[in-house]
Amino acid sequence: MQVRFVWQEQRNGRWQKKERVVKTSGDKTILGLAREHGIEIDATCGGRGRCGRCKVIVSGAINELAEGETLRLTPEEIAGGVRLACYARPRGDIQVDIPTSNTELMQILTEGSGQLVGLQTDIDKTYVVVEKPQLENPLGDRERLLAAVRQKRKDIFAIPLTIMAELPETLRKKDHRITITHWQDRILAVESGDTTDSLFGLAFDIGTTTVVGSLVDLHIGKELAVAARLNGQAAYGADVISRVEYASNGASQRRRLQQAVLDTLNGIVTELEERSGISAGKIGRCIIVGNTCMQHLALGVSPTYIARAPYTPAFSCQIDITARELGLSICPEAAVTFLPNIAGFVGADTVGAVLATGLANSSGRVLIIDIGTNGELVMSHQGRMVACSTAAGPAFEGAEITWGMRAGEGAIESVEIDDDVEMRVIGGTRPRGICGSGLIDLVAELLRVGIIDETGRLQNKDELQGLSSELSQRIRTSELGNEFVVAWADTTAEANDIVLTQGDIRRLQLAKGAIRAGTIVLQRFLSIQDGDLDEILLAGAFGNYIRKESAMGMGLLPPVPLERIRSVGNAARVGARLCLISQAKLEEAARLARKIEYVELSGRSDFQEAFMEAMLFPHVSHVSQDSTGIDKKLPRDRAI
Amino acid sequence: MQVRFVWQEQRNGRWQKKERVVKTSGDKTILGLAREHGIEIDATCGGRGRCGRCKVIVSGAINELAEGETLRLTPEEIAGGVRLACYARPRGDIQVDIPTSNTELMQILTEGSGQLVGLQTDIDKTYVVVEKPQLENPLGDRERLLAAVRQKRKDIFAIPLTIMAELPETLRKKDHRITITHWQDRILAVESGDTTDSLFGLAFDIGTTTVVGSLVDLHIGKELAVAARLNGQAAYGADVISRVEYASNGASQRRRLQQAVLDTLNGIVTELEERSGISAGKIGRCIIVGNTCMQHLALGVSPTYIARAPYTPAFSCQIDITARELGLSICPEAAVTFLPNIAGFVGADTVGAVLATGLANSSGRVLIIDIGTNGELVMSHQGRMVACSTAAGPAFEGAEITWGMRAGEGAIESVEIDDDVEMRVIGGTRPRGICGSGLIDLVAELLRVGIIDETGRLQNKDELQGLSSELSQRIRTSELGNEFVVAWADTTAEANDIVLTQGDIRRLQLAKGAIRAGTIVLQRFLSIQDGDLDEILLAGAFGNYIRKESAMGMGLLPPVPLERIRSVGNAARVGARLCLISQAKLEEAARLARKIEYVELSGRSDFQEAFMEAMLFPHVSHVSQDSTGIDKKLPRDRAI
Repeated sequence: MQVRFVWQEQRNGRWQKKERVVKTSGDKTILGLAREHGIEIDATCGGRGRCGRCKVIVSGAINELAEGETLRLTPEEIAGGVRLACYARPRGDIQVDIPTSNTELMQILTEGSGQLVGLQTDIDKTYVVVEKPQLENPLGDRERLLAAVRQKRKDIFAIPLTIMAELPETLRKKDHRITITHWQDRILAVESGDTTDSLFGLAFDIGTTTVVGSLVDLHIGKELAVAARLNGQAAYGADVISRVEYASNGASQRRRLQQAVLDTLNGIVTELEERSGISAGKIGRCIIVGNTCMQHLALGVSPTYIARAPYTPAFSCQIDITARELGLSICPEAAVTFLPNIAGFVGADTVGAVLATGLANSSGRVLIIDIGTNGELVMSHQGRMVACSTAAGPAFEGAEITWGMRAGEGAIESVEIDDDVEMRVIGGTRPRGICGSGLIDLVAELLRVGIIDETGRLQNKDELQGLSSELSQRIRTSELGNEFVVAWADTTAEANDIVLTQGDIRRLQLAKGAIRAGTIVLQRFLSIQDGDLDEILLAGAFGNYIRKESAMGMGLLPPVPLERIRSVGNAARVGARLCLISQAKLEEAARLARKIEYVELSGRSDFQEAFMEAMLFPHVSHVSQDSTGIDKKLPRDRAI
Repeated sequence: MQVRFVWQEQRNGRWQKKERVVKTSGDKTILGLAREHGIEIDATCGGRGRCGRCKVIVSGAINELAEGETLRLTPEEIAGGVRLACYARPRGDIQVDIPTSNTELMQILTEGSGQLVGLQTDIDKTYVVVEKPQLENPLGDRERLLAAVRQKRKDIFAIPLTIMAELPETLRKKDHRITITHWQDRILAVESGDTTDSLFGLAFDIGTTTVVGSLVDLHIGKELAVAARLNGQAAYGADVISRVEYASNGASQRRRLQQAVLDTLNGIVTELEERSGISAGKIGRCIIVGNTCMQHLALGVSPTYIARAPYTPAFSCQIDITARELGLSICPEAAVTFLPNIAGFVGADTVGAVLATGLANSSGRVLIIDIGTNGELVMSHQGRMVACSTAAGPAFEGAEITWGMRAGEGAIESVEIDDDVEMRVIGGTRPRGICGSGLIDLVAELLRVGIIDETGRLQNKDELQGLSSELSQRIRTSELGNEFVVAWADTTAEANDIVLTQGDIRRLQLAKGAIRAGTIVLQRFLSIQDGDLDEILLAGAFGNYIRKESAMGMGLLPPVPLERIRSVGNAARVGARLCLISQAKLEEAARLARKIEYVELSGRSDFQEAFMEAMLFPHVSHVSQDSTGIDKKLPRDRAI
């Protein structure tokens, strides 16, 4: 049996990755083995199983958890592969990651992935001294380099042409001493001298609206900088469908969209360079997630048939490409991987979110929901995972709503109604419109106080009893039907009153109905009743900002106790970052994309039925209303 | 045991490649097996071993040649793997190529390779019908395509991004019926419909001066068109060394040289398109030979250290690249292979020439000599092959010679001396200068008649006896020493007499000495005496034009009977073409490049000594001179 110990050591103020492989045949503990070979693992109790400090992350065949460990490790640590080195005994070849401190161990956990991941990147650097050329031996630079490399890494064969082009000069700059960066059987970079102390990677989440990039130090797994920009493709259409339509006009239009997002990615790279002081040329690995259409467009691949039944993407698999071929301004031969997609409207961003939330390892009944123009839903139970996409339309993003706007300065982002309307405006300015979270709050509150009824109808003043005069004034009838004044003109930055119209409510009903109907179909697939859901995870920016109470209040989510709802932030990007630092996670992503069952909602009669019902709002008992203005009780969801 | 029969069949006026694999366990003849499975092989004697018509080309384990075959096959056919199907019995898995006719069998032979090569290209086409997408199944186009392909070819996995970009449209153009072109595990092209009836390849020989391209129909191995152009790099320097110097100034200069030769290659592609009527996009395979420096420059790789001791190339190995990456305007993902080099000054062109001449399979003592600015020499004996390069300088190409010029209109290309000078001028015009073959003739003739002595000195008139008055007039003394008037001004297109100066003769002596000294060193390596050489093969354009008698007369070649000297034309390009149509030959090229021993002449004292002596001209006995003006006897070579 072989045990590979991996740890970090500080040298000249820089952290370096160290490795040591030791052989063992007996039934020794990992702590015993480490001590035998002079490898340090912290253990104040001297290995007697008491202090619980000798935490290591183990992958590979290992003995079962001892009771002493379950007492001393958290469930999350156990799920992440943490063991106590004084209890764990190898049963085959294993890798043992020794964290420098508990802080390091917890870092990724606190960054939102909810998992402990051992550092195990799929790229690495090797320092070699190449034999110098001699008159008698006509071997080329490439051949002598490969001969030197193969003494250390037998699996490396290929040197890309772009590297070979400069190889003679690179070799001779520091006396034939060089460092190669390698990935699989391929050399990604050749640098003069010893540069093994630096190794960087990049994770991107390409959203339809926003693109976010993280720069990660691959030696210690730490995120060094984050930068975000609006997707440059926005100029060609706000949503996925209009971009597909534009790209379908021809190859030059498709290339224009590709170039737009590449410009965005490269802008982010420049920003990350400035923030971190790390040259982009040193970035050798990149993982990209995004919805299926964004992946197609970034790769310059025709997305035409994603938007036409039967909604077929050009590819679903993981795509490996060089930065040079893609047009990304990092190390030219850097290995860039687009995570796999599940279907035309359930993309690699969903795979990333499933990975980040550890859904595959959860035995409970869990729903991940990411709301945008499309709502992407994944539901799991006992390892089985089903996913669907449902076209919510842009209402939740403020589009197609009379006073809707994106979440920017002047947007009403939250609303409470007591005797009158209370609101919070982004930037603390006078309001200019209402963004998604504000809309959901507003509708939930109007429902709660009875100004909107279950069918979505804005009541007339005279139908309402016991309403404050302030609220009563806000209800009025225009040419287009009833409307509710959210903010009077004199309190806004606009010339007119900011209102919610009956038409706006109908559009929100359609959006909410689509998403709720998606969850209903998935629940039926897994035979899960509403109350049985153990957890609802809100992924994406939207999940960060909406109030759970309001989402539940307007019936956007299946009815569960509020404490079961949790926002998991930009889980897609966390998933990408996990794949960047862990080869095991990258492999898991490929398995997940195949394993997650896709449910196509269009054309399903049960979806149509669920949709019709789910457009209705939950019934609210007005008796339970309390002075905080928030209904603490579960709304009864009519749709199920 | 498996026998793969391969043949051509005509359908709708087009030749198509057919294949059939049959299994056999017994001791059957190939003819018997073919008949059993309804495969036609011509045999008028009914398989009784008499007619000798059932010729097939066999590769793989086969029984020994029967006497009946050695009687009926030529040595060249036997060397090329030809067997009579009525005698040959498989001893393991074999491939049997059935020629359509004896004409086809002989075609490659007559085209100068001297070998029979069975058609066995390493690219192929496969027609597949891809499953159509369905609502229930979210599989991407790529995944459905690969599933269909793998039913026929299990080894194919990769689809390049450029092909995937258009895949959705390509698939749907002809109802999901497509033809893939594949090479190794990679798909090179996806075409709508069934296009299996056309498959084309391209062979290039990139010379320092001239680039030649051949378009080949890979289904029948036939050359469809040839085109040649001057290498566009000439504007940056006439010879290899000046181009290396230019490229060494920086990456942009290197890229300029690369672009220059790519423009030349693409110009040739356009010309081949026009001549053949075949669209360049249908060319899926390309083999390129050239000297080491031309290979570096075409690939954009730094050649700097080729020109500095110890003359190290950046690479010697075979390079596989796509046409797109190279910048060649054929099918973008076409597989382009640069044959391997042997050393900095013995390149893939030499490998091609060795391949084309079948040197590796010759048991005799053979010398291949390719004279340009550098003379590349390969000598073999009993399978051992040694090679060297010797810097002849540009004298044989007419440069640095007072009246030297390239072989173009107005160049004196041959000279005979009897009572006066007789000459032939290219284009039949008045002479404007002397090209390489003319110079060699001239010096050989002047030596023969005694106007130049063994040391290379132009004699004074008064030192010569019995000279005709016409010749006597032509010898004169100028400020720069003696000179010989080749053509009087009034017979030329120039204002002055065309002369050969003493300085010109010295430069030719240096050039001739360098080449002869190279052969001397190689002979010593293989312990071959002058007279023992069985064959001298003159490769390259130069070998086509010089008169053997004169080359021998001036001591350029080791002294052997004239009938042992043979011109083999552009053997490098023939070698490239062989690799295009035969995977076995391509593999042999890689083996050859490793097997041929390279001898670095610079710094060798035995080369210096041989060079000093080889600068002298052969001693000529004036008694043997006859009226034809050509000395039929072997000159005695002072240099050995």
